[in-house]
Formats: sequence, C-alpha cells, structure tokens
Amino acid sequence: MTSRRKFVQAAGLSAVAAGLWGWKEADEGSAKPVRAPLVLGIAGYTFTKVPVDTGISMMKRVGITELSIKDVYCPLDSSAEVIHGVVEKFRQNGIHIYAAGVIYMKTEQEVDRAFEYAKAMGVDLIVAAPNPELLSYTEQKVKGYNIRVAIHNHGPEDKLYPSPVDVYDHIKGLDARMGLCLDIGHAVRAGADPVKVVGDYAPRIFDLHIKDLAVVSKVAKPIELGRGVLDIPGLARVLNRIGYSGRCSIEHEMDMNDPLPGIAESAGFFRGVVKTLG
Amino acid sequence: MTSRRKFVQAAGLSAVAAGLWGWKEADEGSAKPVRAPLVLGIAGYTFTKVPVDTGISMMKRVGITELSIKDVYCPLDSSAEVIHGVVEKFRQNGIHIYAAGVIYMKTEQEVDRAFEYAKAMGVDLIVAAPNPELLSYTEQKVKGYNIRVAIHNHGPEDKLYPSPVDVYDHIKGLDARMGLCLDIGHAVRAGADPVKVVGDYAPRIFDLHIKDLAVVSKVAKPIELGRGVLDIPGLARVLNRIGYSGRCSIEHEMDMNDPLPGIAESAGFFRGVVKTLG
Repeated sequence: MTSRRKFVQAAGLSAVAAGLWGWKEADEGSAKPVRAPLVLGIAGYTFTKVPVDTGISMMKRVGITELSIKDVYCPLDSSAEVIHGVVEKFRQNGIHIYAAGVIYMKTEQEVDRAFEYAKAMGVDLIVAAPNPELLSYTEQKVKGYNIRVAIHNHGPEDKLYPSPVDVYDHIKGLDARMGLCLDIGHAVRAGADPVKVVGDYAPRIFDLHIKDLAVVSKVAKPIELGRGVLDIPGLARVLNRIGYSGRCSIEHEMDMNDPLPGIAESAGFFRGVVKTLG
Repeated sequence: MTSRRKFVQAAGLSAVAAGLWGWKEADEGSAKPVRAPLVLGIAGYTFTKVPVDTGISMMKRVGITELSIKDVYCPLDSSAEVIHGVVEKFRQNGIHIYAAGVIYMKTEQEVDRAFEYAKAMGVDLIVAAPNPELLSYTEQKVKGYNIRVAIHNHGPEDKLYPSPVDVYDHIKGLDARMGLCLDIGHAVRAGADPVKVVGDYAPRIFDLHIKDLAVVSKVAKPIELGRGVLDIPGLARVLNRIGYSGRCSIEHEMDMNDPLPGIAESAGFFRGVVKTLG
C-alpha cells in the first residue's frame, strides 16, 4: 500500500475524497498511466486573521485537503512535540500539511531552525525567502535534510526576490532541490508572465500561490480567481503540459477576517478551468 | 441609448460591471458582432431561508447582478406599489430582476395574478408551473401581455412536469413565447440529458437553473457546481453554440441557512468553465 493510501485510510476519507488528492502513484491495477489532475491547496497566509479551527472548517467546507502551513498556526520556535500535535490535528480533520512557509531566513540560525521545523512537520518542502548570502548555506541544508526549498517571489517592492526571474537566477546553479514557489500575482506585478515562467523553469517549479489581479499594475491588489486579468486557463494548460505534480495553492489576500466566500469562489474557478481542460 | 445602458447608468455600475451583464445589444461603435458571454444569475429559491438584505449582500459579494425573484421576497398578492418598491430596492443595489418564479398556477385566477405580478415587476419572463389544463389559458395571457413563460421541470416525483421532455411536449404546439426553464439537476434525476435538451429545444430554452449532483440517481441531492457528475463544460459549450442569451441561474439548494460559500464556489466554477471555453 502506498503512503498516500495509508494516509487516506487513516484520515477516513472516501474514495471520492481521495481522488481529490491527485497525487501521482503507481497504478496497482492497470498498466495505463493516468495524468494526475492539478491539485488545489491553501497557502497558509490566507488564514492569518482566523483561528486555526476556523481555518480547518473553511478547508473542509471548500473540499481542499492540502495546506502549506504558515507560522501563525505553528510558531517557528515550537518544540517537535507541539509541531507533531499541530500536524495530528490537521490530519484528524483530513488535511495534509504538504509544506511550511513562507519562512524568511536572515541568519544561519534561522535556516537551521527552518529545517528542523520542516523535519518535525514531516514535510519535504519549505517555501522560503532566505537572504541571498545564505543560499549556499541553505543548499548544504537541502542536501543534508533532503528537504526541498521553494523560494517565493514577492513583487516589485521586495528587495530580495521581486520576480520569479530573480529567484531562478539565484538558484539555477544550485542543487536541483532548490526551486520556486511561483506567486503568480506578485510575478505579474513584477513584470513576469507566469505561463512563460512555468514553461521556462519547469523542473524548478515546486509550489504555486494562485490569485488574480484586477489590473496589470505594480500596485494591483489580489482578488478572487477569475475576477481579474490573469490567464488562469493558460496557467493550467502549461502546468498540465509540464506534468506539474505539486499543488496549486490559493493565497487569498483580501477580506482576511472573512475569507471563506473568496476562497470558495477561487476554488470553484480553478476547478472549472481544470474540468474544462479535461 | 439602449435600455440596458440606461439601467447600467441608473444603477451606477462601472463599465466592467456592465460587461458582466452580457446582454446582446447592437454594437454602436463597430460592425463586428461579438458573441455575448454566458451570464450568471441567481434563482430566488436559493434565498428561501435568508432575509432579503442578506440575499442582496450575498449577490453583491459574488458579483452576480441578475435575479429570478421568488415570492419569498415579494408575495404574489403584493400591490403594484409594493412590487415597485422591491424592484427599486434591488435596482439601487445594482441587481436586475429579470424573471419571477417559480410560480405555480392551479387556477385561472392564479394565472391572472402571476401575469399582473410580472407586469408590475417589469419582467418579460415568468418561470412557471401552470397546471397542464391551464396551458391554453396561459397562452392567451402570454399573447395579451407579451410576457414569456418558461415552464420549470421539477424531477421524477413531480406529477406535472418531471422532465424537460414533458415540458416540451406540452408547449411545442403553443406560442413561441412559451418555453422551458431547464433545471439541469431535476432533468438528470428524471433521466434527461441537459446538453441534448438544450440542443434539441434551443429556441424554447428561456432560462436555466444550474446546480450539480453527486451521482446520477432519481434521489440525488443538489450540490455545488463542479463537485458532482454533471457535464457543466458540455452545457456551456452547447449554450455557446446555440447563442443562448438568457441567464444561467445558480439554484443552490443545500446549506440554505448559510448559502454564500456554496453560491460563491458555484459561481467561480461556472466562470472558470466559461473563461476556459473563451
């Protein structure tokens, strides 16, 4: 039995719910490979203003089971015991924590702490923004822990990684387990085309933060998927083309005290795109 | 100026919001015809359990401006003055009441009342379930008022119009202003294929109630669009093919006391389908 199946059974999920996971696994009953559908997740920043139980209930309501956890739900200096408790709480609610982040790292100690945190969390992916002078040190940790790092682009006002192009330029010569968490909204604000970025950097795209922008502008605010100008069908097409097996995590950054309707609308929109592409 | 433009200006809607209406009108600046995008609406039964102000705020939140009003928000025996007040309240909130219904009609007096109600409401469409023996009388009223009637199919347990095929068989020989409000969930429960129904009865499809079903079964409960088995992309394709110019109204029949997340998810899904089809 695959680890995915074990998790699904442990979480008491139905076969239908399990299908939502979409993880690629060896097909045990047939020789025919099946392309895994794109999988929705939630980027934990979405839940900055709501209690953890509310966040969990919102994920259950919209049928999303993959979470990139933000430290608001589990501080970075938590003990392994506390971290295990958080993971277990989510697991009992059918939610799989697949990554931790965004974690900023300004010192070697903060890099160390992030990897210990991720290890205790049981994730193989840190969504991160290490200071560039720490990238070589971070790479050593990636090799030592066998935990991937996806560096997050944060838009034109960010001094470290404004565009996914800046991220790629920093990591292209480093270990293949160092890549991008492509934030499509910040990317467009910084002048990058997410569809091109995914195509160009395919093997290094480890995670996605999806959202929309009402206009193409450096100062555009994020809105619900489908309300704006970003080419979400084009993004889904290129993700399908490269066989993307990560998550497409909704980062909802409006109505932070009442995010459920916007999360639901964005989830619906993405599912509509995926369903139509077939 | 078209009546649509007048309404849009009166409602203080922006050009972007106006674009959401998608009504077909003569293009005043170009000779090139543009296919109107499919337009979302809300079927008023969705709001059975929430106060009118809540329903209005939910429509504004999800960006849907077209409502088929149910009598819960305006009783059928209301005076014209009361009806005008209801219409004005919605108009001031940027919401256009495009139809009234579903209105059941068991006597000629109830038919009379429905047409007076629709006239006072300013709509050109009644979503209805008149007893079959009243169809000839209803047809006279359609001609007299020049108000269309869209008969609603209500599923296998309905004695009058279980399937859209039953509706069509009753109205095919009647005035062309008598047609269908195709409820895709009830249609599938009654063994009909909504995609085929739209293609076969194209000129008579005046309105749509959209929803999803978890399974194909006579007793399946409606769920959020995209969560179930109905072919929503196929429906949107055939609607585009026939040049459907009515509304695609979400009828959300679960979580009736807290429908907003489900409405938002369904709206997002439909928009994702429409956007992907282009």
